[in-house]
Amino acid sequence: MLKEVVEKSGDVSSKVIDFKHPKELQKLINLSLEDRGVTDDTLLQCCEQIIQYSVKTGHPHFFNQLFSGLDRYGLAGSWLTEVLNTSQYTYEVAPVFTLMEQVVLGEMCKVVGFKNGDGIFCPGGSVSNICGLNVARFKKFPAVKAQGMQALPKLCIFTSEQSHYSMKKGAALIGLGLDNVRLVPCDSRGKMDTEALGKLTEQAKAEGFTPYLVNATGGTTVLGAYDPIVEIADICEKYDMWLHVDVCWGGGALLSAKHRALLDGIERADSVAWNPHKMMGAPLQCCAFLTKETGILQQAHSANASYLFQQDKFYDVSYDTGDKSLQCGRKVDVLKVWMMWKAKGHAGFEAKINNAFAMAGYLTEKLKTLDGFRLINPEPECTNVCFWFIPPSMRGEEEDAAWWQKLGKVAPNIKEQMVMKGTMMIGYQPLGDKVNFFRVVVSNEKLTTADMDFIIDEIAGCGQNL
Amino acid sequence: MLKEVVEKSGDVSSKVIDFKHPKELQKLINLSLEDRGVTDDTLLQCCEQIIQYSVKTGHPHFFNQLFSGLDRYGLAGSWLTEVLNTSQYTYEVAPVFTLMEQVVLGEMCKVVGFKNGDGIFCPGGSVSNICGLNVARFKKFPAVKAQGMQALPKLCIFTSEQSHYSMKKGAALIGLGLDNVRLVPCDSRGKMDTEALGKLTEQAKAEGFTPYLVNATGGTTVLGAYDPIVEIADICEKYDMWLHVDVCWGGGALLSAKHRALLDGIERADSVAWNPHKMMGAPLQCCAFLTKETGILQQAHSANASYLFQQDKFYDVSYDTGDKSLQCGRKVDVLKVWMMWKAKGHAGFEAKINNAFAMAGYLTEKLKTLDGFRLINPEPECTNVCFWFIPPSMRGEEEDAAWWQKLGKVAPNIKEQMVMKGTMMIGYQPLGDKVNFFRVVVSNEKLTTADMDFIIDEIAGCGQNL
Repeated sequence: MLKEVVEKSGDVSSKVIDFKHPKELQKLINLSLEDRGVTDDTLLQCCEQIIQYSVKTGHPHFFNQLFSGLDRYGLAGSWLTEVLNTSQYTYEVAPVFTLMEQVVLGEMCKVVGFKNGDGIFCPGGSVSNICGLNVARFKKFPAVKAQGMQALPKLCIFTSEQSHYSMKKGAALIGLGLDNVRLVPCDSRGKMDTEALGKLTEQAKAEGFTPYLVNATGGTTVLGAYDPIVEIADICEKYDMWLHVDVCWGGGALLSAKHRALLDGIERADSVAWNPHKMMGAPLQCCAFLTKETGILQQAHSANASYLFQQDKFYDVSYDTGDKSLQCGRKVDVLKVWMMWKAKGHAGFEAKINNAFAMAGYLTEKLKTLDGFRLINPEPECTNVCFWFIPPSMRGEEEDAAWWQKLGKVAPNIKEQMVMKGTMMIGYQPLGDKVNFFRVVVSNEKLTTADMDFIIDEIAGCGQNL
Repeated sequence: MLKEVVEKSGDVSSKVIDFKHPKELQKLINLSLEDRGVTDDTLLQCCEQIIQYSVKTGHPHFFNQLFSGLDRYGLAGSWLTEVLNTSQYTYEVAPVFTLMEQVVLGEMCKVVGFKNGDGIFCPGGSVSNICGLNVARFKKFPAVKAQGMQALPKLCIFTSEQSHYSMKKGAALIGLGLDNVRLVPCDSRGKMDTEALGKLTEQAKAEGFTPYLVNATGGTTVLGAYDPIVEIADICEKYDMWLHVDVCWGGGALLSAKHRALLDGIERADSVAWNPHKMMGAPLQCCAFLTKETGILQQAHSANASYLFQQDKFYDVSYDTGDKSLQCGRKVDVLKVWMMWKAKGHAGFEAKINNAFAMAGYLTEKLKTLDGFRLINPEPECTNVCFWFIPPSMRGEEEDAAWWQKLGKVAPNIKEQMVMKGTMMIGYQPLGDKVNFFRVVVSNEKLTTADMDFIIDEIAGCGQNL
């Protein structure tokens, strides 16, 4: 059964999704839990239904999120992880995975340009970003750990208005508050306006705030924009702010000689969040948080639990990584990406990433030549391709407020049609004053120009008579 | 290969661990990542080594952590999860798992006694506890979300001195500060002294603090003590404090008619953290955070990202759960425990949990009859059995400071011997003024009295000549 799912994942002719509305789906699968268990046969039937109605995220026409594809080495790594079912907190219970984390995190630090960096795998990029907020705060104001925020001056941080929402979630969580996340405007391509950043920093200081961190994004969620890290690093140096760089999505470009210039200056970061489960194609979840300074993670997060991190163990306890983490038990996330890296080498990742960029470039150029498609950003930097589809009936009309309002309903309508047919999944969203547009995320390594052509034909087909 | 691991996991005659010190292990396995990938044969050899040197946490003689065992339904669920590789944030990409979470969390709420409860799966019990701290703070002081801690009065929380260290980690993270976690003393069995809690609350108020939360533990990490929830709930009501109950470890008792009285009063909690990956035996990670009030999770954690939680989707978006979470992408953790629950029914879990309690009881009673074993707590409540082994050479001697200091070295020594032989893994730790003692955690459902006898014989054997 599992083999069939794997095979179907790569099969363009199968459905991406067999969509049912929640109330229908509740009737189709008997999910209820009872006093007595069911037979193995019944359970297998349930499994078949679970598979049938789940999204095939490995399908070449799944463009809905920043992850896609199903790598066989990654999958083998994840199955092996499950069978060895352990927690990553101590060397004692995870000897191989502890060393493996050192190797993979070390390699990632090297790629970023951290000479003596440190790091940890986190359950999601948001948690990595939250680690960045917390470690930076501790570094600048160590008293916060014991005394809390009330012992500190008024703090604020900067992030671009198009950066990931985890900065806000994190600020709310760590007691900084949403109001103290100051949003820096972006240019038309979605890149942070660094002149504005400088001004906002001065302004915050004049208002009596201590700005302690800037978050730069390498590959924004919607447009795939890369903030200018070098300029941001200069400003961080000038005002003594921690530079956190969120390359959860766009970090894969670091592995490509052709595209790594997008992240020039990342070696000047103090911390980096980078998710191998996105552009690198590792199975979910696989998210690294890296710091330039070694030891700071441990200092910021340690609680020295004596039942777990006994100092009188018979092996070198400096290998126990658990106190670096915000978690206690921690899922083993490293084996999946290690398997892929070992099997493919840097060269394999580079080829995958170059292909994604090439396919996104092909789609972008083709869209420019077609009636009815309008790119949001004619020169995308990452592999996000964002565009409106303008149905024939709306072409050549005056583009007044009513026209735009109508256009904002096109993408949701086409998406519904595609999902109900099961042909393709693509995200859409509004952005600032721009009404709903499609965002194709090119990430699956198996994509070809035929898949890109399919996107165009399918959208044009569904939108023909709107 | 995977099958072999599964089979060996249940085989008492195989090694729990083939231990190598970090530097040795680094030489044995070639973990390095290169420009070119390796062949599939080389990779398979690596996998064999990974398996060989990893801890067999499913082995009946793995008593080292609060998890143990390898359930075949759980494993099937985890493999299926991996192959369907999706994220739990929206119904759109996780339709089946969204409904499944509703069912399982609903069932867990019902078991706890929450009539209209709500919940979410978190990456580890520590994150659940952190959610408790954060949601409670938001409920009492909604301004914190926008304005941060500096807009609030001086806060503090209470937790017992034997509670889990994630309360401290969480307090440091959310900007409350370690100093504002006030530790309530425990009685000799490790249960919170509620008279002291009342006094400490009065004292904190007199000092100008606002105590906003009490954490009660159901199954402490070391001794397995259950705090008296009813008395704590009375105090929480009196002083308007949020009651969070951490049953990450001991929550399984709720599923047993025989043992659920240990958690009397839990229905009065405002939030509960409960890990099915511990006593219930689900694979790692599987951790539920439950709240009595519906909607509060969403209010506390939402960031309303318009690219992900579009309100104009064609289905009922109230099914999108992502904004309840501190995370964005979220691993699917529910299928593993659902598979087990569906296959075994409540009755299956009850039998498993009753067996664990029975085995712990057997071990406890037997230890009482033996020379050289001394229980830390002669009447343990949960399935933790904690004891010193006193080697023959130390028996009958005067128990002065030097004697105790010497005894503190016995458990580490015996543990090293057992690990090097690969016969058994058991944790040890000091606690307060008590020197290092063994903590056997009985959790694996396959355990028999023969395994309990083995614990005694193996420890006595290793400690014979110390």
